[in-house]
Amino acid sequence: MLRSHTCGELTIKNAGTQVTLCGWMQRSRDLGGMTFVDLRDRYGITQLVFNMDTNASLCEQARKLGREYVIKISGVVTERSNKNLKIPTGEIEIMVDAIDVLNESKTPPFTIEENTDGGDDLRMKYRYLDIRRNTVKDALLLRAQVAAGTRNYLNSINFVEIETPVLIKSTPEGARDFVVPSRMNQGEFYALPQSPQTFKQLLMVAGMDKYYQLVKCFRDEDLRADRQPEFTQIDCEMSFVEQEDILNTFEGLIQHLFKNIKNADIGNLPRMTYADAMKTYGNDKPDIRFEMKLVELNDLVKGKNFKVVDDAEVVVAICAKGCSEYSRKQLDELTEWVKRPQIGATGLVYARWNADGSLKSSVDKFYSADDLKTWMEKCGAQQGDLLLILAGETNKTRKAMSELRLEMGNRLGLRNKDVYKALWVLDFPLLEWNEEAKRWHAMHHPFTSPKPEDVSWLESSPGNVRANAYDMVINGVEVGGGSIRIHNKTLQQKMFSVLGFTNEDAQEQFGFLMNAFEYGAPPHGGIAFGFDRLCSLFGGSDSIRDYIAFPKNNSGRDVMIDSPSKISDEQLKELALQIKK
Amino acid sequence: MLRSHTCGELTIKNAGTQVTLCGWMQRSRDLGGMTFVDLRDRYGITQLVFNMDTNASLCEQARKLGREYVIKISGVVTERSNKNLKIPTGEIEIMVDAIDVLNESKTPPFTIEENTDGGDDLRMKYRYLDIRRNTVKDALLLRAQVAAGTRNYLNSINFVEIETPVLIKSTPEGARDFVVPSRMNQGEFYALPQSPQTFKQLLMVAGMDKYYQLVKCFRDEDLRADRQPEFTQIDCEMSFVEQEDILNTFEGLIQHLFKNIKNADIGNLPRMTYADAMKTYGNDKPDIRFEMKLVELNDLVKGKNFKVVDDAEVVVAICAKGCSEYSRKQLDELTEWVKRPQIGATGLVYARWNADGSLKSSVDKFYSADDLKTWMEKCGAQQGDLLLILAGETNKTRKAMSELRLEMGNRLGLRNKDVYKALWVLDFPLLEWNEEAKRWHAMHHPFTSPKPEDVSWLESSPGNVRANAYDMVINGVEVGGGSIRIHNKTLQQKMFSVLGFTNEDAQEQFGFLMNAFEYGAPPHGGIAFGFDRLCSLFGGSDSIRDYIAFPKNNSGRDVMIDSPSKISDEQLKELALQIKK
Repeated sequence: MLRSHTCGELTIKNAGTQVTLCGWMQRSRDLGGMTFVDLRDRYGITQLVFNMDTNASLCEQARKLGREYVIKISGVVTERSNKNLKIPTGEIEIMVDAIDVLNESKTPPFTIEENTDGGDDLRMKYRYLDIRRNTVKDALLLRAQVAAGTRNYLNSINFVEIETPVLIKSTPEGARDFVVPSRMNQGEFYALPQSPQTFKQLLMVAGMDKYYQLVKCFRDEDLRADRQPEFTQIDCEMSFVEQEDILNTFEGLIQHLFKNIKNADIGNLPRMTYADAMKTYGNDKPDIRFEMKLVELNDLVKGKNFKVVDDAEVVVAICAKGCSEYSRKQLDELTEWVKRPQIGATGLVYARWNADGSLKSSVDKFYSADDLKTWMEKCGAQQGDLLLILAGETNKTRKAMSELRLEMGNRLGLRNKDVYKALWVLDFPLLEWNEEAKRWHAMHHPFTSPKPEDVSWLESSPGNVRANAYDMVINGVEVGGGSIRIHNKTLQQKMFSVLGFTNEDAQEQFGFLMNAFEYGAPPHGGIAFGFDRLCSLFGGSDSIRDYIAFPKNNSGRDVMIDSPSKISDEQLKELALQIKK
Repeated sequence: MLRSHTCGELTIKNAGTQVTLCGWMQRSRDLGGMTFVDLRDRYGITQLVFNMDTNASLCEQARKLGREYVIKISGVVTERSNKNLKIPTGEIEIMVDAIDVLNESKTPPFTIEENTDGGDDLRMKYRYLDIRRNTVKDALLLRAQVAAGTRNYLNSINFVEIETPVLIKSTPEGARDFVVPSRMNQGEFYALPQSPQTFKQLLMVAGMDKYYQLVKCFRDEDLRADRQPEFTQIDCEMSFVEQEDILNTFEGLIQHLFKNIKNADIGNLPRMTYADAMKTYGNDKPDIRFEMKLVELNDLVKGKNFKVVDDAEVVVAICAKGCSEYSRKQLDELTEWVKRPQIGATGLVYARWNADGSLKSSVDKFYSADDLKTWMEKCGAQQGDLLLILAGETNKTRKAMSELRLEMGNRLGLRNKDVYKALWVLDFPLLEWNEEAKRWHAMHHPFTSPKPEDVSWLESSPGNVRANAYDMVINGVEVGGGSIRIHNKTLQQKMFSVLGFTNEDAQEQFGFLMNAFEYGAPPHGGIAFGFDRLCSLFGGSDSIRDYIAFPKNNSGRDVMIDSPSKISDEQLKELALQIKK
């Protein structure tokens, strides 16, 4: 090795030792006869000292080092007079006796600091410099730690990591596939997997029993800020299990990760049905770090000649604790906020229970103080609290109220990133009606099993069929989801038929799986976690991008390598393809 | 869980316990009033017993179970009267009190046994049944074990696993890329990586220092038996190292794996230069489990009017120990063997040193017994040995002799699969002349650094430049290879120029890497192991296919899911592509 130690490990215990370090020149300071240089590597920063009096030519050499020069130095570890107790190496410095410049550097286009002056585009173009910053470097180290923790836990309970293929087959169900033209089979294409779903089910038919994989998946979707065309899943499947077994096994995984990575005891995960989550939080991924639950006021508000609520399917309130003194301006601003197209409410009603005991609302002409008192009681409000109320069609109103609840949570500081609250959401509907396509879609995917007691409704009342499906939600983020699968060919065929597949289409696309079900398929189920998102959650960040070494931008481009790009005519010819302008 | 135990864990210690097992019906035997059923799962086989006398209806039910039915049974663990000490569960059986058929099975198309009656095509089509066979199941479990062992070792010495992108950029250098048309950037393509080479180098520029990844790579080549279009690499890179550091680090990895997986001490790896390997074994991946080295006889054989050898660039012998009594028929057959087009020799000369001390050759009219004696001495032969001799152009003759040597090793039982001999081959040439393209090709890849002392020959005598490149070879198989990389822009540019790139082409394809070299690139190097091949080596198999859960056939097809396949016109339209017939 060109070095004897890293820049993160030398302490007062090493005083007097002759060492060799390699790293990047972070910064240098000339103080009269002395020059101090911070040398940086992946492990930390060590201070180097050069003295004009004792070695002028070496000191001159040090003064010429530019930012991000790669150097190798040797010297003696010495106790500092001016200690920096904020960093592990802060009690020592190196009295350097030799410098070797291993490589020079142009001035970087942005500062390599905790907070950089580089914009997103520049950082992505020079990602290899961006990763030198602690923020990004630590995110990648955290990711590796979460991966190792996941593997350790699953290996310890007999799961087997098995790689499934990347070149698979395109299916029209679900999101859009990336496809790969085949040269050896011209005119035909592979597809990149959106998930290894069918393969992991085949592994269960194959008897592998407990499978997992940290695996790249691909979706050709129009990208949003937190979406990437390629992303990583912790993909898992088990045989001979019921839903309860999956929940317990993966509750164990998340407890293990929190213990190992955050040294936090996340406790047992509460469980909530989809129906309750929608009713109480207006959201199937509720943030339960704070209460402020949705309360339906229908019985109390209807029949008082207030047309808006009389016509509404539902009237929903939340109670903002201690907000009775919100100014008119604040309330107007909140009203504008809920009327934005992203939220879509038509207006906002409020009711204050003032500190002096008086009650006041924006709809006083319809309701008496006694009426308001009944609302307050139903919402569990106290003097000093503020009710915010929306009315309208059920799903839309709940959704808008969920957004308002999260916004109020943010404004009141109730969504602390250092607090983690996880739960299971259960009993999802099996199907949802797609108005555009005029057909039922699988809410999870077509392999999810219906609850046995609901199977008889599959044809008569598909919307009422509940699935053996579950999501794990942490701090309002869906980190994982899964289901007990169908393992019976007839039921799988019926499912495809409900989804509008012809027998021929179902057979052509998923025949291999249905055939496999005829050769002794065991009962099985599984779960997949969004690994990028899980890492960003552990890192306390909203963006997954810094947890991916080389992410793509919102147009799906890698601006560093400039990809995608044109390919040669020869390549196109070999693939029997032509680009249609 | 539907079961209390697996079919692999119950022993005499559990006698008397009430248990529930799930698994597949492997076989059943009716012996008068008793029925015995072998129940199989991933963990083993447990014998079930049913008794006509004590429970006739249950016994009848057991007799109706077909092969590969999935069942759940409960019963009591009981000591067997007729013990099978070959399997861990062989001392007990389960007195069953209830059977639950979880799923039926059609009769499988081949037997689910150690050795199956299914041909390759059938096994691949029903891979989910093939994996139930111990042979394949154990191969996949071994693979997971090798992966876990690799990660444990590398994590323990501060390597960080970092995922690099799968959607990258097509480059004409090297093998053919698989490409992925972009919908959001019509007319442009991503490529799937042949290796994460440039990304791991960028991670070194980024300061990540010690990187690894178990990663899928892709090559659109015409497939041979042991090639797959997608394969897995253990990909590694380190900064601030010299060749010696890489060799030591990864010698440590392979020692760790042999210790953990085979409980074998593989010892320190000998080192051999490429030049010596070619001269002594005719091969840059020598199988050193056995001697039988190539010996050059030029000085001894030339000038005796035997035109074949007089015209030959090189005359090479191997000594087959104890083979002097090979019959004429055997020698004729060997002669035919070396004359096959795959080997390409024009003939084979032999010389025997018989047990009685006499010497005899196929070229006695040119050489005396004394001549033959000098050959024997040079080859270290003894009475009873046989020399096999080829003559011709150096590279071709060495290559043919290497093949003959391996064949003789096989015939003489010198290539024991349970013996492992690993070595490093060093000092590869940097470049090789490609006659077809009339230009120099990089023997390893264009990022490999020349030996500093050879750099001056880059332009004047490219063929003589040695690379800082190394391969790890085990039992004649190249399991890994790597190099110290170029980390200087000017040298990298010169390398591209020697390879026939214009400045513009080099900049367009690899500009991002050369730019990165200008911002403080550290000295770095790495290695990549062929993971599929490494696993098959540990498993003692010549084929990598059984070590891949869902492999493709020699036409690149997955016959189970029937991929590649046609995609819809709508998909083609979105991608702005047309298929050219």
